Amino acid sequence: MNLAGKFIVIDGPDGSGKGTQIERLAAWIRSQGVDCTITNDPGGTPISDRIRSVLLRADLLKTMDPNCEALLFMASRAQLVAEVVRPALAADRAVVCGRFISATCAYQVAAGFPREKVLELGKLAVADTWPDLTIIIDVPPEVGFARMGRTPQKAARHGADGQALMFDDVRMDDMEARPLEFHRRVRALFAELPDVYPKPVVTIDGTPSPDEVFSRIQAELARVLS
Amino acid sequence: MNLAGKFIVIDGPDGSGKGTQIERLAAWIRSQGVDCTITNDPGGTPISDRIRSVLLRADLLKTMDPNCEALLFMASRAQLVAEVVRPALAADRAVVCGRFISATCAYQVAAGFPREKVLELGKLAVADTWPDLTIIIDVPPEVGFARMGRTPQKAARHGADGQALMFDDVRMDDMEARPLEFHRRVRALFAELPDVYPKPVVTIDGTPSPDEVFSRIQAELARVLS
Repeated sequence: MNLAGKFIVIDGPDGSGKGTQIERLAAWIRSQGVDCTITNDPGGTPISDRIRSVLLRADLLKTMDPNCEALLFMASRAQLVAEVVRPALAADRAVVCGRFISATCAYQVAAGFPREKVLELGKLAVADTWPDLTIIIDVPPEVGFARMGRTPQKAARHGADGQALMFDDVRMDDMEARPLEFHRRVRALFAELPDVYPKPVVTIDGTPSPDEVFSRIQAELARVLS
Repeated sequence: MNLAGKFIVIDGPDGSGKGTQIERLAAWIRSQGVDCTITNDPGGTPISDRIRSVLLRADLLKTMDPNCEALLFMASRAQLVAEVVRPALAADRAVVCGRFISATCAYQVAAGFPREKVLELGKLAVADTWPDLTIIIDVPPEVGFARMGRTPQKAARHGADGQALMFDDVRMDDMEARPLEFHRRVRALFAELPDVYPKPVVTIDGTPSPDEVFSRIQAELARVLS
């Protein structure tokens, strides 16, 4: 299997261990003699970081329209793809990216945004630069939260109408404010992606050891991309 | 003619006198006993202002992907419509807005972005909240520049591949860097809008006196909205 010029996204609920697997995957790709770019969405370019900072302003977030939020995520991706992903792929590097349009198909859709609209916007934002393979690392919310040393609320505080959560690092307060039910919907929506996403998506059980999860990622890469 | 609950956009090339006509129109609407909200795109809300500030960062602009730029404009509009325009219309106010999706149909399209993509993104951003009437104040670029005390370059410096210009106030250096040919394309694209925009657009000659231009605006409002 040659991963040169391949675009691989690792996505999944908070606490699923994406960061660890992204690092392992990139190290393994490099050990095969293929240059590999690691990046993260939203972010990864100066412009995308500025957009991300708008998305993260908690004081603005409460009044942010869902269309505005989805468009901002897509603007950030358009820039990431144009400035980082396409040039890397064109130079025959592999690209491993944490989160992508798949995340909006889970978090924003769990908050009520139509999935078909996400996919339509995605096509307008990145044209044909969709990931060759998207790997969803699946863990139940209880496991994800436990790994992060947090406890989700059992009851809704903000309800399910607010904005989506997909910043493992910075919006933890918001994440905890979400009812467990929201995180269950996110998980279910990630699980539906193989049937609705325009490019291949596989779901991997994220509850075993990191070694075991990584073995399964390697097996899926070989199966789908060989 | 009752302008309560009507959404009116005034757009057109730089130096066409939009600001003056927006103020006059709002004052006139109020003199009819109808509350009127004035706003400007991009901007008009705290979130939209933050997005505008990303669009205005000259250091970022040079590397900004055209899809990213169009999505940012649309994100700003989605927020403006959700937070300002729809609530005002629902309260039976009139809304007069400087620039809107029509501007992207001129400036970004003049820079090479597909117009059908602008209109598609516009529908995703604002749903059915399109202006009841868009008034394009038409002036030749030479007149617009002369009014603003500036001279456009006769020859291309940046070429036609860069980002579009639609900030009368802050990006003048950029505007001047554009060849006259670009501004002619912008004008021609504004002139095509009545045939391609999903809602009514009228073009008004902006070269007569402000009084005369305003009379014509009143006449078009009466003709289209009565």
